Amino acid sequence: MKTYQFQTAGKVVVGSHSSQHTVSYVRETIGTVKSALIISQPSILKSGFLDNLVHDLKQAGIGCQLFTSIKPEPTEAQLTEIYNQFSEESFDVLIGVGGGSVLDATKLLSVIFTNSSGIRDMLGADLVGQAGIPMVLIPTTSGTGSEVTPNAIVTLPEEELKLAVVSRHLYPQLVLLDPVLTLSLPPSITAATGMDAYTHALESYISNKANPISDMFALESIRLISDSLVEVYENGSSLVARERMLLGSMYGGMALASSGTAAVHALAYPLGGKFGITHGVANSMLLTHVVEYNMDSIQDRLAVVASAMKLPEALEPSSSRAAEAVVARIAEWTRVLNIPQNLRDYGVQEEHIDSLTLAASKVTRLLNNNPKPLGLDDISGLYRKLLAAPC
Amino acid sequence: MKTYQFQTAGKVVVGSHSSQHTVSYVRETIGTVKSALIISQPSILKSGFLDNLVHDLKQAGIGCQLFTSIKPEPTEAQLTEIYNQFSEESFDVLIGVGGGSVLDATKLLSVIFTNSSGIRDMLGADLVGQAGIPMVLIPTTSGTGSEVTPNAIVTLPEEELKLAVVSRHLYPQLVLLDPVLTLSLPPSITAATGMDAYTHALESYISNKANPISDMFALESIRLISDSLVEVYENGSSLVARERMLLGSMYGGMALASSGTAAVHALAYPLGGKFGITHGVANSMLLTHVVEYNMDSIQDRLAVVASAMKLPEALEPSSSRAAEAVVARIAEWTRVLNIPQNLRDYGVQEEHIDSLTLAASKVTRLLNNNPKPLGLDDISGLYRKLLAAPC
Ligand SMILES: NC(=O)c1ccc[n+]([C@@H]2O[C@H](COP(=O)([O-])OP(=O)(O)OC[C@H]3O[C@@H](n4cnc5c(N)ncnc54)[C@H](O)[C@@H]3O)[C@@H](O)[C@H]2O)c1
Ligand SMILES: NC(=O)c1ccc[n+]([C@@H]2O[C@H](COP(=O)([O-])OP(=O)(O)OC[C@H]3O[C@@H](n4cnc5c(N)ncnc54)[C@H](O)[C@@H]3O)[C@@H](O)[C@H]2O)c1
Ligand SMILES: [Fe+2]
Ligand SMILES: [Fe+2]
Repeated sequence: MKTYQFQTAGKVVVGSHSSQHTVSYVRETIGTVKSALIISQPSILKSGFLDNLVHDLKQAGIGCQLFTSIKPEPTEAQLTEIYNQFSEESFDVLIGVGGGSVLDATKLLSVIFTNSSGIRDMLGADLVGQAGIPMVLIPTTSGTGSEVTPNAIVTLPEEELKLAVVSRHLYPQLVLLDPVLTLSLPPSITAATGMDAYTHALESYISNKANPISDMFALESIRLISDSLVEVYENGSSLVARERMLLGSMYGGMALASSGTAAVHALAYPLGGKFGITHGVANSMLLTHVVEYNMDSIQDRLAVVASAMKLPEALEPSSSRAAEAVVARIAEWTRVLNIPQNLRDYGVQEEHIDSLTLAASKVTRLLNNNPKPLGLDDISGLYRKLLAAPC
Repeated sequence: MKTYQFQTAGKVVVGSHSSQHTVSYVRETIGTVKSALIISQPSILKSGFLDNLVHDLKQAGIGCQLFTSIKPEPTEAQLTEIYNQFSEESFDVLIGVGGGSVLDATKLLSVIFTNSSGIRDMLGADLVGQAGIPMVLIPTTSGTGSEVTPNAIVTLPEEELKLAVVSRHLYPQLVLLDPVLTLSLPPSITAATGMDAYTHALESYISNKANPISDMFALESIRLISDSLVEVYENGSSLVARERMLLGSMYGGMALASSGTAAVHALAYPLGGKFGITHGVANSMLLTHVVEYNMDSIQDRLAVVASAMKLPEALEPSSSRAAEAVVARIAEWTRVLNIPQNLRDYGVQEEHIDSLTLAASKVTRLLNNNPKPLGLDDISGLYRKLLAAPC
């Protein structure tokens, strides 16, 4: 019988307006803190939340610095630039407020500050030597689940690659899930990041490393996201639905932290590395096709997913009908949520398929989790479906 | 909208024979360790597991001491005695292997070693000043879920009381759930501790502090325990069922850590403090009666529980039928598992009811979580049911 593991953030606080009490949660969880570095994105700066946070930190006698220009899908160059800017300073806590790009950047900076080795030496599994600076992660997309995973993704534009640092030192001490911060997400980002979260849950559930703990989180994530995804896309103002999406996204992260994602993610990374297609969009484009590819290996598992999604076909005795209903529902979401369908819109041509395929085939960390093996022809066949799809 | 929290052990490893690799998990999770104190019970000493653990620690160059005489429901006196025995030593890790009594003793010793205040000063919530010695907890009952809760219970026989220390410093760094270690549980302890675990899940689910996170853990716990409890009682040799019970018990602990238990536990403590009735037995005796008492406040929630328990009545439109089916199933377990039914067998008489009632009424930390308020007459009425019950 196999062994499996679960590990997560030190503490998770959930609730509308909980982020207004960030400073007291920081003190309660991390203890005495004298100086903080806040890491964020321009879209968050606009909301005024960071002004309040800076104000509260100052009130509490905590010095703070800000870096609020994290670009989507952070690059090695940007991380090095931030490190150089602050390398003379000493921080007791890093507070990351933003989407997965900010959370991953915060996680990486945390260990860059405390390790003499650079990012390049940390790429891969368990290559971070020392614990980092304590972190507070406040996600503003529902989304990556990065707040509870040991992974952080770096884009290396020169190599046209996205690669992961995976380390137990990348878990934060504190996570705040405040749905109020996600109200400002535009529908297209709500859709793409929500599909990313669903993909984490689904891939974790069908992963070769799936286990009873990851299954629980994956199915709960699928339940919550299926319930709320279209609603938050069409009308993003419901705090109840936004909270369900944040929980669903976190559970997706908990699931993948235990069992790993698979082929959708493996094929998505080269699309990000080479063509700058954002992570959520790349996953969403690929999801239906990869699930169809896997179908004969995962039919029984998809029948359980159908039931978590409350699809009427889940009640039928045939698991194949239920499994097909899951694919149909994902395809329907793709239409309803206006997920892009054609790689040509991003400049991808037939001539790029070989190099994309080669790059994806190297993501063995994730391909090994896929329930059905993928040869080079299988991978290129999947990419080609996205060249042929109707615009 | 309300705020809720989740916090748990640093890392959880699950799997048959996983405990054979305790030393390498300790190194991976806690880092370099030079000396360990193992805390356990006579029943575990017999199994040979501790001999292997000592051997592996020595092989790894880790010095170790043992204390293997933890008595059920640990007392302040015993904890003080252990502290005095080892107060000159310095340990990098405490390894607790046993039922809830051992886990709670290990948690308390961890902070007794590092705080100048004694247990008495820590009784209550958030009164532990300093973090303790890092802990590894290896439960051998499925059971208390203590491996993932911030609580530890101390018996004060002079005061005829059981009281709790509740602190974020009581979470261990590492938990190993190895079903192999639970194979030796005799049926009566399997039954009583299994009912304790079920009670944690059920009370967390109907608690006034129930929230989406505790609900997920509670329902998954209820699913797993309902599925396996009678099986492990009748034939304890299935590793699959034993693993499900350990997971169910851990999830019960995760649920109660977030939302708290309620009246069953409040009424159980005086039975332990004054009459030495073990925790699992006291809870099991009370459960049906307290659920019936709460019925009109929790009918809809019990209908969801009925569904998690796969009771056929869950499919009926009326939630009252489903809720009654839950009570009937719990009562059936009480018979099938031969749970004691009469407090007279433990020396309780009518004349003790008033003092039991007074003691229970003081457990406001838990009574406040109960969905229906309990006056003194309600509490004494519940105890009286257990004096009248057929032998
Ligand atoms: N670490 C992990 O486990 C993990 C998992 C999946 C993806 N990722 C990585 O995360 C990154 C993607 O993260 P993402 O999908 O959250 O996108 P993102 O962080 O790049 O954000 C997308 C866009 O949304 C904006 N935005 C974020 N929050 C907003 C809000 N509340 N209101 C308005 N605008 C807002 C951002 O400014 C940005 O322009 C990628 O680099 C991906 O590789 C990491
Ligand atoms: N901290 C918490 O959150 C929490 C929750 C519930 C209960 N508790 C406390 O936990 C204690 C009860 O723990 P418990 O119910 O696990 O019982 P226990 O630890 O007292 O063990 C009961 C008996 O079973 C024996 N035993 C344990 N494992 C065995 C095995 N694998 N094979 C054979 N015999 C074995 C023990 O030696 C003991 O005699 C009480 O003090 C109770 O108050 C704590
Ligand atoms: Fe993703
Ligand atoms: Fe209990």
